[in-house]
Amino acid sequence: MRRSLPSLEQFVQGIRASDRVLLGQAITLAESAREDHQEISREIIRQLLLQTDASQAPALRIAVTGAPGVGKSTFIEALGMYLVEGGKRPAVLAIDPSSAISGGSILGDKTRMERLSASEKAFIRPSPSGDSLGGVARKTREAILLVEAAGFDTVIVETVGVGQSEIAAQRMTDLFLLLLLPGAGDELQGIKRGIVEMADLLVVNKSDGERVKLANQARAHYLNAAHLFPPKPSAWTPRVMACSALENTGIVELWASIQEFKDHVMHNGFFQENRRQQAQYWLEDALEAGLKAKFFKHPGVQAKLAELEPEVLAGRMSPTDAAARVIGLLVIG
Amino acid sequence: MRRSLPSLEQFVQGIRASDRVLLGQAITLAESAREDHQEISREIIRQLLLQTDASQAPALRIAVTGAPGVGKSTFIEALGMYLVEGGKRPAVLAIDPSSAISGGSILGDKTRMERLSASEKAFIRPSPSGDSLGGVARKTREAILLVEAAGFDTVIVETVGVGQSEIAAQRMTDLFLLLLLPGAGDELQGIKRGIVEMADLLVVNKSDGERVKLANQARAHYLNAAHLFPPKPSAWTPRVMACSALENTGIVELWASIQEFKDHVMHNGFFQENRRQQAQYWLEDALEAGLKAKFFKHPGVQAKLAELEPEVLAGRMSPTDAAARVIGLLVIG
Repeated sequence: MRRSLPSLEQFVQGIRASDRVLLGQAITLAESAREDHQEISREIIRQLLLQTDASQAPALRIAVTGAPGVGKSTFIEALGMYLVEGGKRPAVLAIDPSSAISGGSILGDKTRMERLSASEKAFIRPSPSGDSLGGVARKTREAILLVEAAGFDTVIVETVGVGQSEIAAQRMTDLFLLLLLPGAGDELQGIKRGIVEMADLLVVNKSDGERVKLANQARAHYLNAAHLFPPKPSAWTPRVMACSALENTGIVELWASIQEFKDHVMHNGFFQENRRQQAQYWLEDALEAGLKAKFFKHPGVQAKLAELEPEVLAGRMSPTDAAARVIGLLVIG
Repeated sequence: MRRSLPSLEQFVQGIRASDRVLLGQAITLAESAREDHQEISREIIRQLLLQTDASQAPALRIAVTGAPGVGKSTFIEALGMYLVEGGKRPAVLAIDPSSAISGGSILGDKTRMERLSASEKAFIRPSPSGDSLGGVARKTREAILLVEAAGFDTVIVETVGVGQSEIAAQRMTDLFLLLLLPGAGDELQGIKRGIVEMADLLVVNKSDGERVKLANQARAHYLNAAHLFPPKPSAWTPRVMACSALENTGIVELWASIQEFKDHVMHNGFFQENRRQQAQYWLEDALEAGLKAKFFKHPGVQAKLAELEPEVLAGRMSPTDAAARVIGLLVIG
């Protein structure tokens, strides 16, 4: 039996009323590869954005990353529960391009955030799958708009911490938080070059028990390193902090720093300017991806390519000539 | 007074007869940003490829790179003159994306290859200018087809040796030759990571006078390093040699190695397979660049974008929604 989809009206009203089932279904539509699903999803988001009260304070979008083993899930659970207890409504999304390959997303196992998953005030969604980081990132970005429309005021975007997905996460968030292990240097932590410099907050996790001393060493190391970072366009000086998600220490101070960051960038206008630049980037990204998808999937284009490609591969026709002939099929109406 | 262009027939016949003026003009058309020039250029190349005798031995395309100061011009002059004296016809092209910015291309100053420039048997062309490496590389690739149609049998593509242009050069050549300085290691030579591993031939230049000892040290160092390179798809083991372009020593041995490389890859089929893969790459590259250029330059698309972009930047419309509306203008005929 195939159930019919809720109506556009039902989706829009349901999401605005924080209906978690409808929210989940809408995200599924945004993640779908089917053009009809994409169309409904775009319309839902369109209606939701039209109904958004422009005077309302925007949600804060936080990227959380760190090497495997740094305790991201435990950390996000601790931070999320702290927010829930303070009356906030956190949503946790993820960008994990490996999830399509490994079959298991970093957030797939909800038991890793047992308390937060059970909370009525929180929303957790595993990474969308997709054939490319670009596809996964675009889907996560739509999910951000949906959870915000449902009233979640703090959006945490988790990434795996070892590559390009951090750059995608930074391009859709307001604050970049890097989790670190006590003791070890960048190389040992498996952190790619450039990621440390992206961080607004560097947080040494697992600062508990016998590891407190090592955590303090790591903190001192990164404090020194932070002095050498190039100045950020936000004019924010990165902070280096320590916490224990396990023992729930340092979370209050961390949240205070996050608030200070937000005040800083709201006050100097970087928050707004950054959001504009991000929107510009994602517009270009969506235009390019959409243009290529529509053009190269067209049967006429595929037929023309099938005719000319062998000529090019055999060296009898230049790539530029063949490309011009294929692009000749493009009409703009 | 504006002279009219030679006819298509004049271009094709002239280039096949090695008319250097018409060859130069045809390259200028290939480099032009004007669509009508591009169209003539594609037609010239199309006719030339159709008239190419498939049984004729293909020209050998050689990428030559190395850090500034390594003596690329002197080396290319020495190798080129050796080829001319042996009855070969070398053409020298360049990929230098910085030439648009600095105003001076690496080959702009022909006096740096005084003897080769004066030779009837050789052809030297400075780097095309362009706003992007992609554009510069595409133009150089068209120039390769033109000089080959004019009968030049050895095409040397020179790059600046410090970045992405080496990858573009490798994608349009059969052999990658890296010039090295006596003594200094990779880092000191300013060679980017990964470039050394790309080389089929590593040539320590300036092995003359007091530098012979240092050159031998460098050769030993790179011989050791070459053992650690990952195996190449060509199944060719990189060679490390020394030469002095100034004293004209080592050039004979170098050319013998180049011939051995060519025999090796012709015999095991890599030469042909690599050319096919390169053609595939450049076809995709030209399709993508051409599609974007045609679509985004269209007044209707620009008008639609001008209408929707402010909505996206203000956060009132999602990038995906706006992109879908713009792409809706695309029709395939």
